[in-house]
Amino acid sequence: MRMAATAVSPNAEVIARLGQVCSARGLPDVAVRLGDLHAWIAADLAHFEDELAALPRGASLVHRSARHLLDLGGKHLRPMCVALAAKLGTGFGAEARDLAVAVELIHNATLLHDDVVDLGDQRRGAPTARTVYGNAASIFAGDWLLVEALQRVQHAGVPGLLDRTLATIAEMIMAEAVQLANRGRINADRADYFRVVEGKTAALFRWAMVAGARAGGLDEGACRALERYGLHLGVAFQAVDDLLDFTGSAAVTGKALFADLREGKMTYPLILALEREPALACVLEDILAGPPGPPPERWRARVLDTLVRSGGMRDCQALARERAAEAVASLSGLPGGAGRDALVTVAEATVHRES
Amino acid sequence: MRMAATAVSPNAEVIARLGQVCSARGLPDVAVRLGDLHAWIAADLAHFEDELAALPRGASLVHRSARHLLDLGGKHLRPMCVALAAKLGTGFGAEARDLAVAVELIHNATLLHDDVVDLGDQRRGAPTARTVYGNAASIFAGDWLLVEALQRVQHAGVPGLLDRTLATIAEMIMAEAVQLANRGRINADRADYFRVVEGKTAALFRWAMVAGARAGGLDEGACRALERYGLHLGVAFQAVDDLLDFTGSAAVTGKALFADLREGKMTYPLILALEREPALACVLEDILAGPPGPPPERWRARVLDTLVRSGGMRDCQALARERAAEAVASLSGLPGGAGRDALVTVAEATVHRES
Repeated sequence: MRMAATAVSPNAEVIARLGQVCSARGLPDVAVRLGDLHAWIAADLAHFEDELAALPRGASLVHRSARHLLDLGGKHLRPMCVALAAKLGTGFGAEARDLAVAVELIHNATLLHDDVVDLGDQRRGAPTARTVYGNAASIFAGDWLLVEALQRVQHAGVPGLLDRTLATIAEMIMAEAVQLANRGRINADRADYFRVVEGKTAALFRWAMVAGARAGGLDEGACRALERYGLHLGVAFQAVDDLLDFTGSAAVTGKALFADLREGKMTYPLILALEREPALACVLEDILAGPPGPPPERWRARVLDTLVRSGGMRDCQALARERAAEAVASLSGLPGGAGRDALVTVAEATVHRES
Repeated sequence: MRMAATAVSPNAEVIARLGQVCSARGLPDVAVRLGDLHAWIAADLAHFEDELAALPRGASLVHRSARHLLDLGGKHLRPMCVALAAKLGTGFGAEARDLAVAVELIHNATLLHDDVVDLGDQRRGAPTARTVYGNAASIFAGDWLLVEALQRVQHAGVPGLLDRTLATIAEMIMAEAVQLANRGRINADRADYFRVVEGKTAALFRWAMVAGARAGGLDEGACRALERYGLHLGVAFQAVDDLLDFTGSAAVTGKALFADLREGKMTYPLILALEREPALACVLEDILAGPPGPPPERWRARVLDTLVRSGGMRDCQALARERAAEAVASLSGLPGGAGRDALVTVAEATVHRES
């Protein structure tokens, strides 16, 4: 899925693929519910995607760098969160659409800056914007998307939401700083791990849920419930990301395997494995000190072996499942119906995603 | 001036030094008026500097990178513009102070990103944040200052000003993109030069004047007049910057000589000299293709020679003077008094700055 102007939307393709995975895993009911989810949300996401496609495609290096990344699609999971929350209330109207675009732009802005910081070469199965247009263009493109996002939040006019947006972006930056300070340090600090995940990943899911809820006119209690849902969904999402760094298919995730590890990032399975088998540190040090590119097969095998034997992979999977369940539990006070069912499906299916 | 906690404020030192320059240039009246300006604004700028110093000094790499740059002082010319505009109205109150801090943070955010983009090593007479804390920390520190700035604009609550701020930042980014696209291209395109200067430099001076004017409760006519003042002051300021790249004292400017040229940026004296003596292009190509660091003495001498002989330096100086005069002329409809006198002094003295 490389171009914006394709017939099938990126999100629809993600849902369809996830449905196939769930069928293959012997979860036909989740596959069916993903079909319901798609029927519930497809028209709204098509509107969102039209709006996203309408962003400037100027000759400027900044526009081209940003479009390069946006046109590679992505899962559009955060905009889907905005839409699902809004549809629990008055629906996915113009304000919610602005906010759905905003959350996707903020997410992409962080990716454009992250790829410069991490010297990332591959993203969404293609060369990163920085390798095509240069680091400078990628930095300014990130700045531009951030401003575009804030203009949309401002335009949506939901009281108090701009303050909340700025606070969320600040939280994301401070989590990046923690990750940066820890980079390349082989340590097993779960507290730091959760600080980074909650700030870097979950904060924006929380924002997406709150933004959609407010745009949909939901009351304070519902907003708080959906915010908790966003927090847990974000952590579950990241836990699966951590697993995919070791066991995913690069062709499906669009990212090289062991990329987080090579960037010196301690993911959850590694932290657990290190706690239980401290000797793993030697292999990790070798990998981090080694040349760029995928680590040699024998090192990868040793890491995977330890991750499996120590239960690191299993318990990371369990973390994803627990947090998905907590996300679902957060919805208990909300009225039942297609909207709540859709959120339940998203949380449950997240655990099974392979991209 | 290296530490924030010095007895003399950065701005006061800049004004005092400028007064000495004006005296030495046989302009004792400007020197006297700079003294008046200082008396008029010193207490307000001290409040501004207290507020700036109150920004977080956490252990985070992001805070430390940002503080590294902020603590090196700078001229605080943009906050002074906010203060002077506000003092034409109801005075430099809490809102205007928020906006003065905001404009300085936006300016520093752009410097933190620019230094990564340009691989800049020296700024304000010290190593850049990126050389001390790394490119990644400098990028995130720029992101953080931008968010902090927007929070202050939002907090000030001046109607319509947040929209204006976002539009101004977008304008600055697009000007950066034009500069980036032209980097290393030896061309004499005045239109591109003015697009970059008006977007990258003058847009923020315009914003500073408008922000101060709005916070000070001035009417639309006064706001527009002050915005024109900011535009012309910004261009004059940049024209002097261009001159200082060739003839400044690195010890005073805090930047290496020929830095703009080595970064592949076509400044105004170069554009004029190239129009008039196209053979200059060969030397410039040699310098751009040469090793990093200051170009050899004989190349520098040839460039300077051509800049002087062609009248490029003289006409850039003339541009600065003309725009300073236009800035002063923009004030004609405003009531006279210490406030207007101060703005006249700022415009006239800008032409003589050596740092």
